Amino acid sequence: MTDASYPVSPRNRAKRRHDRAQYDHEAVHAVLDAGFLCHVAYVIDGQPYCTPTIHWREGDMLYWHGSSASRMLRNQKGGTPVCVTVSHLDGLVLARSGFNHSANYRSAMCFGTAQMVDDPAEKMQQLHAVTDRFFPNRARSLRAITPQEAKATMVIKMRIEEASAKVRDAGVGDEDEDLGLPIWAGVIPVETVIRAATDSPHLPAGVTRPAELDLYAPGSRLDVALLAAQKLYQPE
Amino acid sequence: MTDASYPVSPRNRAKRRHDRAQYDHEAVHAVLDAGFLCHVAYVIDGQPYCTPTIHWREGDMLYWHGSSASRMLRNQKGGTPVCVTVSHLDGLVLARSGFNHSANYRSAMCFGTAQMVDDPAEKMQQLHAVTDRFFPNRARSLRAITPQEAKATMVIKMRIEEASAKVRDAGVGDEDEDLGLPIWAGVIPVETVIRAATDSPHLPAGVTRPAELDLYAPGSRLDVALLAAQKLYQPE
Repeated sequence: MTDASYPVSPRNRAKRRHDRAQYDHEAVHAVLDAGFLCHVAYVIDGQPYCTPTIHWREGDMLYWHGSSASRMLRNQKGGTPVCVTVSHLDGLVLARSGFNHSANYRSAMCFGTAQMVDDPAEKMQQLHAVTDRFFPNRARSLRAITPQEAKATMVIKMRIEEASAKVRDAGVGDEDEDLGLPIWAGVIPVETVIRAATDSPHLPAGVTRPAELDLYAPGSRLDVALLAAQKLYQPE
Repeated sequence: MTDASYPVSPRNRAKRRHDRAQYDHEAVHAVLDAGFLCHVAYVIDGQPYCTPTIHWREGDMLYWHGSSASRMLRNQKGGTPVCVTVSHLDGLVLARSGFNHSANYRSAMCFGTAQMVDDPAEKMQQLHAVTDRFFPNRARSLRAITPQEAKATMVIKMRIEEASAKVRDAGVGDEDEDLGLPIWAGVIPVETVIRAATDSPHLPAGVTRPAELDLYAPGSRLDVALLAAQKLYQPE
């Protein structure tokens, strides 16, 4: 763990609620690593698109796959600007006034240039990473990736040039003069949790869920499990 | 409930997995209404931004507030193109090959032109809507919105011009020839749930949580509660 920070520019500097903003790697990565889905914003012919997809991280490199930026990237060999955001909702905050209603959340917004991973060895490494980052040591236990499958999968990478994290984790923020009003106020917490796994109906006799997946035990919080899996995959 | 659909163009037609895509109002709205947070993609000087924010819906109009498009909208009185996406993660799908790993999810991507809500009456109506849509009948119980608060809040609206929903809700999709391999495969479901509310420490004696908030009882699924609240707010 270092105390490094992402540089701050007009692009990533928080415009509102800058009291909630953080720019250090640790804060940004903690939000990214706790999420399974990100949203990628990109532009084609002036039209913005916002695509949800699975992301993974190694150091200050973000990776995702699939089609999100594919049409765009096909036409721009040098890469194209994107913004990748990960958000977690942690609570609904009900105040005595509409204005002071809020949410508890964690979000990270990352800016950089998206590029296709073209090198075959680098691509194969990342096709294993997307499994192992979430499910410890799983890639080596799987049927090998075929050349056709590797060809059919697009891997995209982006070095995080600038980023910001925003966190609200607090109670109700009412005005002092509203506290005595006969209105219920409080926080309704929200958690994303894991339920009991369903086996594939085709499992051969004797095949059971490997212990490495105990991270995802029923009732566990998904964000906590994902953070733990990332720390196993890439200790910092 | 109608069987109306959003028009399909190159902008919103699904590029991949079009077998999972739907364009009817019912499918799109079901995804939007089950979510508390959306991600708004917009462009400033060629740079895409992806901002998470709270959204609400009336018919085919989406609303959000805050700063997400504020810098952009200040300079573009006629409105500006945006893409608003809402996503739900419903499960992790572990297959016998890396290639067939997947996720169960619901997502909706909406395209339109964002505009500021400038009309004072329309704006006040939406400042009440953002409370009542989530918390039935709550706005009338609150301390009234002051002119300063209304001025400090920006409300943005977008008519949904085009949209698509994508849903995966299935088991493991392995190749037939992989089914006999000695590899565990299955689905790990994910749910976003509500925990027990914490009262504000300043509640006057006798003030209790109103029955309208029973939608958000501990253990309830957030998406189910949000859908139910929307149906109370706007029966279709």
